[in-house]
Amino acid sequence: MPHAVVTLLQDAIGASVSTAPAELEAVREDRSGWRSATPPIAVVHAASVAEVQAVMRIAHETSTPVVPRGAGTGLAGGAIASPGAIVLDLSRMNRVLEVSEADELAVVEPGVLNGDLNDALASRGLWFAPDPASRAISSIGGNIATNAGGLLCAKYGVTREAVLGLAVVLADGRLLRMGHRTVKGVTGYDLTALFTGSEGTLGVIVEATVRLRPITPGETVTVAAVLPDVEAAAAAAAAVTAARLRPAVLELIDAAGLARVAAYLGADGVAGTPLETLAPSETFLLAQCDGAGAAEEAAEVARLFAESGARVTLSTDAATGERLLGIRRAMHPALAASGQVLIEDVAVPRSRLPEMFRAIEEIGRRHGIEIPTIAHAGDGNLHPNFVFTGDEVPEHVWAAADDMFRTAVALGGTLTGEHGVGVLKRRWLADELGDDSFELQRGIKALFDPSGILNPGVMFEAPVSSDASEAPAR
Amino acid sequence: MPHAVVTLLQDAIGASVSTAPAELEAVREDRSGWRSATPPIAVVHAASVAEVQAVMRIAHETSTPVVPRGAGTGLAGGAIASPGAIVLDLSRMNRVLEVSEADELAVVEPGVLNGDLNDALASRGLWFAPDPASRAISSIGGNIATNAGGLLCAKYGVTREAVLGLAVVLADGRLLRMGHRTVKGVTGYDLTALFTGSEGTLGVIVEATVRLRPITPGETVTVAAVLPDVEAAAAAAAAVTAARLRPAVLELIDAAGLARVAAYLGADGVAGTPLETLAPSETFLLAQCDGAGAAEEAAEVARLFAESGARVTLSTDAATGERLLGIRRAMHPALAASGQVLIEDVAVPRSRLPEMFRAIEEIGRRHGIEIPTIAHAGDGNLHPNFVFTGDEVPEHVWAAADDMFRTAVALGGTLTGEHGVGVLKRRWLADELGDDSFELQRGIKALFDPSGILNPGVMFEAPVSSDASEAPAR
Repeated sequence: MPHAVVTLLQDAIGASVSTAPAELEAVREDRSGWRSATPPIAVVHAASVAEVQAVMRIAHETSTPVVPRGAGTGLAGGAIASPGAIVLDLSRMNRVLEVSEADELAVVEPGVLNGDLNDALASRGLWFAPDPASRAISSIGGNIATNAGGLLCAKYGVTREAVLGLAVVLADGRLLRMGHRTVKGVTGYDLTALFTGSEGTLGVIVEATVRLRPITPGETVTVAAVLPDVEAAAAAAAAVTAARLRPAVLELIDAAGLARVAAYLGADGVAGTPLETLAPSETFLLAQCDGAGAAEEAAEVARLFAESGARVTLSTDAATGERLLGIRRAMHPALAASGQVLIEDVAVPRSRLPEMFRAIEEIGRRHGIEIPTIAHAGDGNLHPNFVFTGDEVPEHVWAAADDMFRTAVALGGTLTGEHGVGVLKRRWLADELGDDSFELQRGIKALFDPSGILNPGVMFEAPVSSDASEAPAR
Repeated sequence: MPHAVVTLLQDAIGASVSTAPAELEAVREDRSGWRSATPPIAVVHAASVAEVQAVMRIAHETSTPVVPRGAGTGLAGGAIASPGAIVLDLSRMNRVLEVSEADELAVVEPGVLNGDLNDALASRGLWFAPDPASRAISSIGGNIATNAGGLLCAKYGVTREAVLGLAVVLADGRLLRMGHRTVKGVTGYDLTALFTGSEGTLGVIVEATVRLRPITPGETVTVAAVLPDVEAAAAAAAAVTAARLRPAVLELIDAAGLARVAAYLGADGVAGTPLETLAPSETFLLAQCDGAGAAEEAAEVARLFAESGARVTLSTDAATGERLLGIRRAMHPALAASGQVLIEDVAVPRSRLPEMFRAIEEIGRRHGIEIPTIAHAGDGNLHPNFVFTGDEVPEHVWAAADDMFRTAVALGGTLTGEHGVGVLKRRWLADELGDDSFELQRGIKALFDPSGILNPGVMFEAPVSSDASEAPAR
């Protein structure tokens, strides 16, 4: 006999409701490797704002938890089935509703994939700048819910800077519009910014008005370099900033990561690149410069890299540039080839990057594990990776992650630069925020979601957790 | 006999408390022309975070309203004495506490003037991008409290994009830190963005960590043009956007405004500029291009202006560029020379600029007044100006302003692009936001300021208004 709430859903929007076991199983995970203790009671593949409102009205009346979910590519367990929940899948709401060239904006449904929007915009000479590495598979609703970052943030900003307005379904089913179709607008508090990065805990994003940019003119110039060690790489990255240069991309791979990438790509894969002759402690830096002054800027970047002892390749043709960027892109597949990967996401002020790299090595030694790390060196965001075998993150990996989060915060940084808190990191949230901020944030949550049905367990401990397999919540 | 609260203040931080009549008078106004009904009970010239905390603790215990005030240059009555209030003047807290070149950030006290910070940064090749026209006289705390805009927002963003973190004293005197020293950081809700633009209603900003940029390399190229009428000017501005060009500055002055500027500058002032031979309906466009491709971009802008029937001057030397920008800068002095000026601040999507200009003309005709208007054409933000004589804004001017706000909102715009709501525009706030958003915003206000002592009457009606001379509140 079906759950009473499922019957209500079926009566209201039957065709969009699924209880097929395979579908219920699929939404227990995202790409973090985290798995919820139980499947949801139903998955609703919402096709319209009205259907989202119908779901929230039923959830409100029956006090049923709702987990908004986009493409399921999250890395913090922010959109996985919580106990007794409806998973509200928004991936079918994937229409680009409007592109205004004159106002340089697009109005999109939340399920539009980041890459699909950019494909649709390219012929108009426009571009949606937020560029998470997952852009081919991640949805704009999810990008906004996590305030996604990516490779281009030091130059082009985080997702928040590209969101002009939102339409959101509130916990009780009301539709709320916020923000503007203009770059400026200061009427009242900035709810659009508040919802950006709120991880589905304040409302369900059903439409976004996003800011577009003219595609940066000219060719992109790529500079790839192998450096003697991680200190040299961090120093070279710092030298770029000190010279007031502003490459669009500046990525750093440490020695442990680079060795795995080189092994993964093989001799053919690295032929003709600076990885061809790789010594054990060597590290990798990749810069891409764009815009009218790209060639001069890239030449200067290459000179600074060389001064730090690098073997440098500078490429002005797109194909070689793509191949060099492919070295960075190979990092995750290279790690995934050897086990499960827990990708962490700390950020520190750029000036503290050398210390953070040293701390990561130290933490790895202390816990007897290798922690291959890639960093967006331009903005201080590091992804230390924990590779393990089996379904569960082992306790010593959590212990190492705990050390790492605390080190990042002690260095003036943050436990998550761009992936979000989700269920994975909520136990550290109050530590970073402090008690006063934590309580005010809970007050905001209670204001928008008084009965606590929106994504319970994400960011904050669920009011009553029956999810025994989850990590101990704070 | 002094007010009991004043005695408490004097006992706690005597040297910083003033009840001198001239000082109490001075803080009844900002630059909006609005004047509060009564002077405050005291002005506190806070010298430290501890003093701000002392003021808020006393205010909290005695339920005394507090009006945070920076340089007093606001244009919406957001920092003027409310009845029975302490005015908390932050202009003495004007130290630059830190500049980190490596992390491209500065930590500043709220009273630092925008222009002073940039003077201090110039020799390091760095720059704080938010650029309100008032930068020489406005404080960074005030820029943040209003999320100030300015001339460069289409290319360089609004103030929010440049604020990484804040320290705020809450209504009960607790000190709260929020945000990061990194560009990325998604731990919890974005309180930093929520406080940016909150107009002193949620807490008192006592420290800001702001993002710096490398000074844009190369020379700035200026293009000034006189066009046959406002439609031609709006079309030329739209053509710049359509060509995917992105000048740093794109300003438009309508015919009524330009005639006054030309008269104010006089024959000598306009000699050698496109204003030298000015016909009655003619309008003005000014673009400035910067960065590595500035010369090519400016040449293209000039070509597009000429296609719209403009007389164009293109200047690559800084002195001439400054002189041409001086035409735009002369707008406010030109108006102020003929009376009191109420500067309005609507914004519309760029594509609706021609309609908005037509509507302003129409509204002026209907109410029998001329409304000289200047627009940041790159971002759709218009400043229609109402010139009047006497101390009070006449009723027919408010009626015209009311028509204008409603028109801007109907065109998909907003009643304030960058000046804020203050006391001047709160009667229209709920109309633009809608009832649901308005109630949620009041909920946020109540969460941070449960007893309603922070800047009462700004944004929202004061709980009990005894300020009889104020415009009827909603």
